[in-house]
Amino acid sequence: MKIKLADNYGFCFGVKRAIKLAEQSPNAVTYGPLIHNNKEIARLKADFNVGLSENLQNFSAGEQVVIRTHGIQKDELAYLQSKKVKLIDATCPYVTKPQEIVAQMSADGYDIVIFGDKEHPEIKGVRSYAQGNVYVVMDENELAVLPLKERIAVVAQTTRKIENYQKIVAYLMRSYKEVRVFNTICNATFENQDAVRALAKEVDVMVVIGGKNSSNTKQLLHIALEFCPHSYLIEDAEELNVSWFKDKLCCGITAGASTPEWIIKEVSQSIEAL
Amino acid sequence: MKIKLADNYGFCFGVKRAIKLAEQSPNAVTYGPLIHNNKEIARLKADFNVGLSENLQNFSAGEQVVIRTHGIQKDELAYLQSKKVKLIDATCPYVTKPQEIVAQMSADGYDIVIFGDKEHPEIKGVRSYAQGNVYVVMDENELAVLPLKERIAVVAQTTRKIENYQKIVAYLMRSYKEVRVFNTICNATFENQDAVRALAKEVDVMVVIGGKNSSNTKQLLHIALEFCPHSYLIEDAEELNVSWFKDKLCCGITAGASTPEWIIKEVSQSIEAL
Repeated sequence: MKIKLADNYGFCFGVKRAIKLAEQSPNAVTYGPLIHNNKEIARLKADFNVGLSENLQNFSAGEQVVIRTHGIQKDELAYLQSKKVKLIDATCPYVTKPQEIVAQMSADGYDIVIFGDKEHPEIKGVRSYAQGNVYVVMDENELAVLPLKERIAVVAQTTRKIENYQKIVAYLMRSYKEVRVFNTICNATFENQDAVRALAKEVDVMVVIGGKNSSNTKQLLHIALEFCPHSYLIEDAEELNVSWFKDKLCCGITAGASTPEWIIKEVSQSIEAL
Repeated sequence: MKIKLADNYGFCFGVKRAIKLAEQSPNAVTYGPLIHNNKEIARLKADFNVGLSENLQNFSAGEQVVIRTHGIQKDELAYLQSKKVKLIDATCPYVTKPQEIVAQMSADGYDIVIFGDKEHPEIKGVRSYAQGNVYVVMDENELAVLPLKERIAVVAQTTRKIENYQKIVAYLMRSYKEVRVFNTICNATFENQDAVRALAKEVDVMVVIGGKNSSNTKQLLHIALEFCPHSYLIEDAEELNVSWFKDKLCCGITAGASTPEWIIKEVSQSIEAL
């Protein structure tokens, strides 16, 4: 089986930064998963004793608490600060940016529209910075019923596809006087998406490696499926299925922004061995 | 010949307002054509002795000078003010708006992109209010070569099609951090465009009445041609050609925003008489 790696894949700047911060803080505890990759979180626990808690109440004064790459909600941050924990902010700077934009635009009287998944921690965090009207939508069809005013500021989840964001803006600009568009989709996401698009066209099977709860990984799978119907999402080599590669000549591999290089290598070697 | 009028056509709010101002100012002179309709300008001359001059130097102190619906350039306005003429500002308020936006955004450090025709007086006027970088484009293909900074404000000529404006914004938002979109396309233009789209689908010949130098009239013709290949632009009944109506059953009529009702009636009656 021939293997081709996407020109861009895997860890983005924000994830690399967060892991480095965690590695530099042995015995710290992250509030929620640091990144969307369970294997890497297990490695941080094994190698650096960096723990994980989903419960804010568990933290006590003086404890090192790592804020996850996706950021947290404004009131959670305030709570942690009030508890006088030692905060290590691993929020991706590309996520801090839309948080700041939403706070500023909202203070300036704009209605806020966020293009993203309202259940995703990044969006829960970004949304929490709005003081006034704020709406989270996944596509333009959800916009018609919103009681928006004339001036609207829009941000996007960092991992969204630009084409869908363009549709939302196209809808808004038709109906409202001012639409202030902030392109908060991150370049790493663009680059990984462009690379999977190119690669999926030239292979007959695609393997996308990443967390099943990772938004950017799911986007990569979605794009891969557009061009290569035999595309599969796995978290590690154990999930590989021999039948996927039957009669196939060339396998493309890409990985989400939270997928460490060592997992990608394992998968690649397992496929080669088939 | 059956005749159907578009649900919306003809004079918009800004043109009606300008004509009223001109009629209330007998013996005044407009700087450039008040509206893009030569017949109506001739009527204002005949009935109210409202003249027309294309030359700024011709105006003298105390003279009543009417500013055309399309607005004029900032330095021309300053020149007229310095000459102490009596200004009657018939600039359409929907044109004053993008002038103000360009001045403000430019002062706030945004690069300005104007979607429109750089030779059109409205756009020459709007553009003149920029202090910094300003670029006028007719489609998104012109954007790639522009040395734009990260923050961009965009306005559109009032008479442009929203679909084309959306393409320009879609391009910009892909490449720049902030795109501040002002929808300065006027509702009257929308309404006339929607109406011609609906009408052109149900007739077998379309007549669009308006000035051949009128941007919004040309847009109407363009839309009409998409749905009815037998669409024609005329300025008045004299330009009607009998051959257009041969073997046709139903004729649709629409008119640009500067076309007076009396011309539309003449055309309609002439077609009926065929």
